[in-house]
Amino acid sequence: MISVEKALEIILNSTQDFGVEEIPFLQSSGRILKESIFADRDFPPFNRVTMDGIAIDVTSFQNGQRSYKIEGIQAAGSEQISLKNRENCIEVMTGAVLPKNTSAVVRYEDITIKNGIAIINIDAIYDRQNIHEQGKDEQKGTELIAKNTLIGAAEIGVFATVGKSMVKVAKHPKVMIISTGDELVGVEEIPLAHQIRRSNVFTLVSLLNTLNIHSETNHISDDKMVLTSKIKEYLENFDVLLFSGAVSKGKFDFLPEVLENLGVEKLFHEVAQKPGKPFWFGQTTSCKVFAFPGNPVSTFVNCLVYFYPWFYNSTGTKIEKKTAILSEDVIFKPNLTYFLQVKLSYRFGHLIATPINSNGSGDLSSLINADGFIQLPNDKIEFKKGESFKVFSF
Amino acid sequence: MISVEKALEIILNSTQDFGVEEIPFLQSSGRILKESIFADRDFPPFNRVTMDGIAIDVTSFQNGQRSYKIEGIQAAGSEQISLKNRENCIEVMTGAVLPKNTSAVVRYEDITIKNGIAIINIDAIYDRQNIHEQGKDEQKGTELIAKNTLIGAAEIGVFATVGKSMVKVAKHPKVMIISTGDELVGVEEIPLAHQIRRSNVFTLVSLLNTLNIHSETNHISDDKMVLTSKIKEYLENFDVLLFSGAVSKGKFDFLPEVLENLGVEKLFHEVAQKPGKPFWFGQTTSCKVFAFPGNPVSTFVNCLVYFYPWFYNSTGTKIEKKTAILSEDVIFKPNLTYFLQVKLSYRFGHLIATPINSNGSGDLSSLINADGFIQLPNDKIEFKKGESFKVFSF
Repeated sequence: MISVEKALEIILNSTQDFGVEEIPFLQSSGRILKESIFADRDFPPFNRVTMDGIAIDVTSFQNGQRSYKIEGIQAAGSEQISLKNRENCIEVMTGAVLPKNTSAVVRYEDITIKNGIAIINIDAIYDRQNIHEQGKDEQKGTELIAKNTLIGAAEIGVFATVGKSMVKVAKHPKVMIISTGDELVGVEEIPLAHQIRRSNVFTLVSLLNTLNIHSETNHISDDKMVLTSKIKEYLENFDVLLFSGAVSKGKFDFLPEVLENLGVEKLFHEVAQKPGKPFWFGQTTSCKVFAFPGNPVSTFVNCLVYFYPWFYNSTGTKIEKKTAILSEDVIFKPNLTYFLQVKLSYRFGHLIATPINSNGSGDLSSLINADGFIQLPNDKIEFKKGESFKVFSF
Repeated sequence: MISVEKALEIILNSTQDFGVEEIPFLQSSGRILKESIFADRDFPPFNRVTMDGIAIDVTSFQNGQRSYKIEGIQAAGSEQISLKNRENCIEVMTGAVLPKNTSAVVRYEDITIKNGIAIINIDAIYDRQNIHEQGKDEQKGTELIAKNTLIGAAEIGVFATVGKSMVKVAKHPKVMIISTGDELVGVEEIPLAHQIRRSNVFTLVSLLNTLNIHSETNHISDDKMVLTSKIKEYLENFDVLLFSGAVSKGKFDFLPEVLENLGVEKLFHEVAQKPGKPFWFGQTTSCKVFAFPGNPVSTFVNCLVYFYPWFYNSTGTKIEKKTAILSEDVIFKPNLTYFLQVKLSYRFGHLIATPINSNGSGDLSSLINADGFIQLPNDKIEFKKGESFKVFSF
């Protein structure tokens, strides 16, 4: 049995590159950018008017002039016009190009317009006021977004701004999620007294959807022959297999044996943690196998603790680690890392983790009231109110 | 001009009910549940074996017996069998039904099996050990998930467990996102010197996708006739119109006038905030109109600060408010609520907000380095390192 830290180290050293694909920018939210995005021109691309009002040559104002004949209008989206007489002005709209021969914009609020004449009612105007100067935000050629950025709404806006209608993103792994166990029946079936419905595979589908990974699911009965032939096929056709169940010590838990017979290199089996201990991890040259224990909370926590970081590492994404503060003392005696279900809330900038009373590791419905697992390390027994630990929120 | 608090109050009092729809459970992640989910049977539905080993009648052990003939195997997914002779045992697997006439499970680790006889090597066995008793987690008929819960992976797992293959969720609003402004060209076009590409509508599409809202987009030129006829059509066919641009004081910013002429009741125009001040909000009986200012950061912040809570309130979702701690002193003199771009990170359970230096409210690319806005209220000028404020993360 290895430690959580060691298990994670092994997993993070077994990352995989799934390549790159080019997709329409508007579909790229939640994906990992695999190219640098550069400014295709200066931003703003011209001296941009930032207030509605009039544009003047500021030297005239400095010479004492206060009354300006309106020569024309410069609207947003119109070609730049020129102030012909430097003692006149041009009405300008937010977003417009600053007219040639002008050097400051005076807001409508600060002028009075009558009979085509604008009178300035304030005493000070500075050069370049209310002008967002060309290239001030970004110069043409600057890197705006670095490779390996997780794409969100701000990135989508920048793609549009620089005309990147197609973007290169990390390809996602082809994932097959497999349930085993003859006690399982489908969601739409009425289980007999000794049966229960499949649920873990769907929890996993949903957890992977959160990462924008679309997965397939299947169920294999507890039959060594069937298990062997199906898994052989999946190992050849998928980048990742996720199993739920069949990895503890039972007579019909022959999954580890089947995997090893099929040439999957075992990297570890069993991690010193609760819940989620009987976790088996292995690989072939082209496929990773995460075989999680069958109980719902174990599957859930192991997906967050192991699969998520493995995926982030494989795609080159950096994710900020969260820590939270215990709201009460917790005692946990076994020499295991304890993933305790917690409710998370913010108080004055502190992320507070309140333990949830659950009946044990198998109770999926307790997760409904939780929104994270706090990771209490195995080198202590008492965890004090006010201490902070790593937290996995969902 | 009204305060941010007043604007939010008006918006939260203008919520709308979009009704309920029934969808396949596996597509319901990110949606708001609109029914209660009950346990369709006890959980566990039977006395469930939690360890692989043997099941015995514990009274025999208490009478001093240590050696048990193995009568049979109870596998997971098999109908319950009976222990015929109470001085024998049955091999049992994790997930199996506890056999009739047995009352404790002894792990393989604690026994030795030879020639069909299991010998118990430990001195104490308690009644019901290694058995997850029927109904211990949940009793049949208990509410497992309340109405108005935001659906995630745990809920998906529970739906599957209780056989809810179709679930009732809040219908989402039909949203049209409209850009205006003749300076705008399409993402795939090469803008002329005085033009820029449309980007805000796509930022909004992406921000709404995060809420699982699928929206349509369109562009209308700065022509009062066209604007009027298009908006009339959209008001009739959509629940929400989101505008970006054309709501400040410019000569061609006639959107507020057009809206009011079309019978849209103005609820406010201009909020005492930076960025995002020239925000116009109004409604008809069937449609809400959020007209955001045209600059990218203003649109972004107003969508988070106003549209998100409006949507949560309309669908009955409760969202935990986040607060964060300033990492440095900030001075902001104008009598406006300041939405400052920040980078967020967790340190010992504290959510730390580090201000991002941006060139002003118009610079979308500065948002690439930010992951939130901290809300600094307008009743102060100095905001001290260590103080906590509401934060909107993205």
